[in-house]
Amino acid sequence: MRFSVPGLALGFFLVVGQLLAQPATPLSRLRVQGNAFVTADGKPVVFQGLNASDPDKLEKSGHWDRSYFEEMKRWGATIVRFPVHPAAWRNRGKAQYLQLLDKGVAWAGELGLYVVIDWHTIGNLKNEMYQNPMYETTRRETFEFWRTIADHYKDNTTVGFFELFNEPTVMGGKLGTCSWAEWKALMEETITIIRANGGKAIPLVAGFNWAYDLRDVAGSPINAEGIGYVSHPYPMKREKPWEDKWTADWGFVAKKYPLILTEIGFCGPDDKGAHVPVISDESYGDAITRYCDANGISYIVWVFDPQWAPMLFTDWTYKPTRQGTYFKKALQQQATRR
Amino acid sequence: MRFSVPGLALGFFLVVGQLLAQPATPLSRLRVQGNAFVTADGKPVVFQGLNASDPDKLEKSGHWDRSYFEEMKRWGATIVRFPVHPAAWRNRGKAQYLQLLDKGVAWAGELGLYVVIDWHTIGNLKNEMYQNPMYETTRRETFEFWRTIADHYKDNTTVGFFELFNEPTVMGGKLGTCSWAEWKALMEETITIIRANGGKAIPLVAGFNWAYDLRDVAGSPINAEGIGYVSHPYPMKREKPWEDKWTADWGFVAKKYPLILTEIGFCGPDDKGAHVPVISDESYGDAITRYCDANGISYIVWVFDPQWAPMLFTDWTYKPTRQGTYFKKALQQQATRR
Amino acid sequence: MRFSVPGLALGFFLVVGQLLAQPATPLSRLRVQGNAFVTADGKPVVFQGLNASDPDKLEKSGHWDRSYFEEMKRWGATIVRFPVHPAAWRNRGKAQYLQLLDKGVAWAGELGLYVVIDWHTIGNLKNEMYQNPMYETTRRETFEFWRTIADHYKDNTTVGFFELFNEPTVMGGKLGTCSWAEWKALMEETITIIRANGGKAIPLVAGFNWAYDLRDVAGSPINAEGIGYVSHPYPMKREKPWEDKWTADWGFVAKKYPLILTEIGFCGPDDKGAHVPVISDESYGDAITRYCDANGISYIVWVFDPQWAPMLFTDWTYKPTRQGTYFKKALQQQATRR
Ligand SMILES: [Mg+2]
Ligand SMILES: [Mg+2]
Ligand SMILES: [Mg+2]
Ligand SMILES: [Mg+2]
Ligand SMILES: [Mg+2]
Repeated sequence: MRFSVPGLALGFFLVVGQLLAQPATPLSRLRVQGNAFVTADGKPVVFQGLNASDPDKLEKSGHWDRSYFEEMKRWGATIVRFPVHPAAWRNRGKAQYLQLLDKGVAWAGELGLYVVIDWHTIGNLKNEMYQNPMYETTRRETFEFWRTIADHYKDNTTVGFFELFNEPTVMGGKLGTCSWAEWKALMEETITIIRANGGKAIPLVAGFNWAYDLRDVAGSPINAEGIGYVSHPYPMKREKPWEDKWTADWGFVAKKYPLILTEIGFCGPDDKGAHVPVISDESYGDAITRYCDANGISYIVWVFDPQWAPMLFTDWTYKPTRQGTYFKKALQQQATRR
Repeated sequence: MRFSVPGLALGFFLVVGQLLAQPATPLSRLRVQGNAFVTADGKPVVFQGLNASDPDKLEKSGHWDRSYFEEMKRWGATIVRFPVHPAAWRNRGKAQYLQLLDKGVAWAGELGLYVVIDWHTIGNLKNEMYQNPMYETTRRETFEFWRTIADHYKDNTTVGFFELFNEPTVMGGKLGTCSWAEWKALMEETITIIRANGGKAIPLVAGFNWAYDLRDVAGSPINAEGIGYVSHPYPMKREKPWEDKWTADWGFVAKKYPLILTEIGFCGPDDKGAHVPVISDESYGDAITRYCDANGISYIVWVFDPQWAPMLFTDWTYKPTRQGTYFKKALQQQATRR
Repeated sequence: MRFSVPGLALGFFLVVGQLLAQPATPLSRLRVQGNAFVTADGKPVVFQGLNASDPDKLEKSGHWDRSYFEEMKRWGATIVRFPVHPAAWRNRGKAQYLQLLDKGVAWAGELGLYVVIDWHTIGNLKNEMYQNPMYETTRRETFEFWRTIADHYKDNTTVGFFELFNEPTVMGGKLGTCSWAEWKALMEETITIIRANGGKAIPLVAGFNWAYDLRDVAGSPINAEGIGYVSHPYPMKREKPWEDKWTADWGFVAKKYPLILTEIGFCGPDDKGAHVPVISDESYGDAITRYCDANGISYIVWVFDPQWAPMLFTDWTYKPTRQGTYFKKALQQQATRR
């Protein structure tokens, strides 16, 4: 026991911060029912949306503002994902990064967009080894991130999803080993922490191979109710035709659990930023959007930024790239059908 | 192998430091016999004492001096506990913090007071998550702390006890999970390290719920001889009447192992520093002191400081607070009975 | 996914760095065949060589140069070991330390000497506790070191061996516990990482008791093909006569796996740097070199430095010490028999 009287001030500040983070007209609290995401009144929702780039990157370049969200809304998005890089979180500092997130969550809420907060790392959390330095984190930092986020957004309904770990991968052993059982235990511990700290957003869990592979879910699902699963089925993860492979690798999950593809996207072989595994063409766009429509799967396109690839626009006039043209149309058509 | 000749100097310095730390007339070496702490000649001892605040805090405010120990002696204490906060240990530095401890141990020894060195953290050591930042530490730092302390005080008999980890808690899952088996393994590893480094003080082990709960000891005691158990039964951990609940939760341990309540205390609901779980009145003092007397249980009152709560005095004239008045009398009466 | 276009530059730089690290006339790629190290054409090789001191230490004192390698060659060495201290690796920085290694590997290759890169730490990697601060590292840093080294030297045939961890020890419990099964798992994870990152050098694995004891290999060998085992049989690890004890403790391994003693050496009781466990005389030199010859075991003498002990020369004229005189003759005789 150690109780210092002046210590009360901090708790008070945090409570006020949470109230300010809530929009004037809250969105309906999302939850899981069967294999669907549903609103408070039980109505199923399938999302189509856009990935922001890191709020830290956008703020530094002067683009973390309401107009960025208005443009995503105009493109037809109903959800937006915030990829929080561990290095950005550490370097900006917790309190300052939360202020960034609060602003983005407020703009999203005012425009009726749900938010996914994504701990944007790539690697093997068991060994704390990563694809490159900007993804470096620890188990402890990951747990503390979710402790903080769960507490901070506990009463905020705009933040509909917590994506626990962007892309798990051992890089073919370059980062050592991690079994599904070890990964599952890490995800279950994270969910325990989130919920004990009051977090009500839906936890989203990915599998290995850079969040592509969910086959282990068949025999050994995450031991927690009310969660969704994630895949990132970029075009080159499998050879065309994709559909049967997608069903075997991750699509089967959608029969039993809600599924959301938090990253999809493509660019042509000669486009700026072309790299494995994203090189393809509009036939990929057709295939993945039809597959999602047919199976009630949500998706979020990577990435609403003119520098990160595959990019959706070329400059800050929001001029669409090749995939930007494709997905702007796809999302707007979905929006008119709602 | 790498042996650098000038390296001999450091070892010499450490040996001299240890000799200086020993009082002129050493106290009798304590050990465990059955369910009792006993002196070298086998005489059982039950302690009543006081918690110092962190030596680092006392030194910074000019109160880490012999008169502080003389006052504790006048209040009737036979033991004093030093709560070493990990953040204070790190910030002051190992060598400088050891100098503080050496001074306090010397003053205590001269006055015939035994010392408990307490690694004063609160949280889940398995996940390295804590109640708040001042309690942050790692498994490695915890092991290294005890390696250092065990070696430094190996021949000092004033330091009768090493309290391995102040208050284990998962905070209802906010800090993730830790099973008793996992906790037990961490404590056993710590005891192995202490003893291999020559530490002869009695290791003290606490259980979950902020060191309140020892029920797991019944079926799965720590696998080590010569240790004691700890509880911190503040009044609001259970509803009055307490006695049967105390017996079920931790008191039963005293039939088989030595037991010491390294923190007890109360304050009135309107007193400065009142907070859960310490709010009560003198009936708590009566109950806990009688329970300890009846069962041969040692206790140490929290805290001999005018700012930390529940405080025992109001200012540096050592004017007793409400609980200070109560416990000063209780300890002095015990002292006259010795 | 996050792909930043300017990021290409770094990959290009690393590839160029690797090419420059390769000598003009490459040595034959070593591999394991049965219980022998063999060249690419299957010819068995038994090595006799010398331990450099830490390249960082040599560079700081102006001795990391081609003449140092020429002198080792003159003494009859066919292999040289580079003990990389974790603190030196961290303090100099990865890129700068790799430049040091590249120079040494190039000089060795030009002179026909194979190189062992040795992660020179002493302690319990499981608990991340060490004999003293210069040996401090973490599991993560150890894995990352080997990820870096494996990738950097993947096509370099001079670097014949990766010695994964110099001297594992729990120091009789002072560093806690580590079972052989726990140690084995750490070594297997390291080997997985090395090979997935393209490392083709032969991994060398030591056992507890400061790399002396390999008895656990009998019942529970490392689960990986193509590796060698290590012992450091300094004279005082066992009482003379040594031979039967050596066979029981580590020599038996040589019947089934390639074995290399990456540290041997002695000094007289009054020599500078004399310390446990290295004090002996020439009878130790006779015994260990004969034992190695009789059993096809490679060895590397500690240490080609005038300050670290047991030293092989007294000053930078390379004047041999007592053990220097002994081993210079032993190596040169071996060299004439080749
Ligand atoms: Mg307490
Ligand atoms: Mg993967
Ligand atoms: Mg050695
Ligand atoms: Mg607890
Ligand atoms: Mg991705």
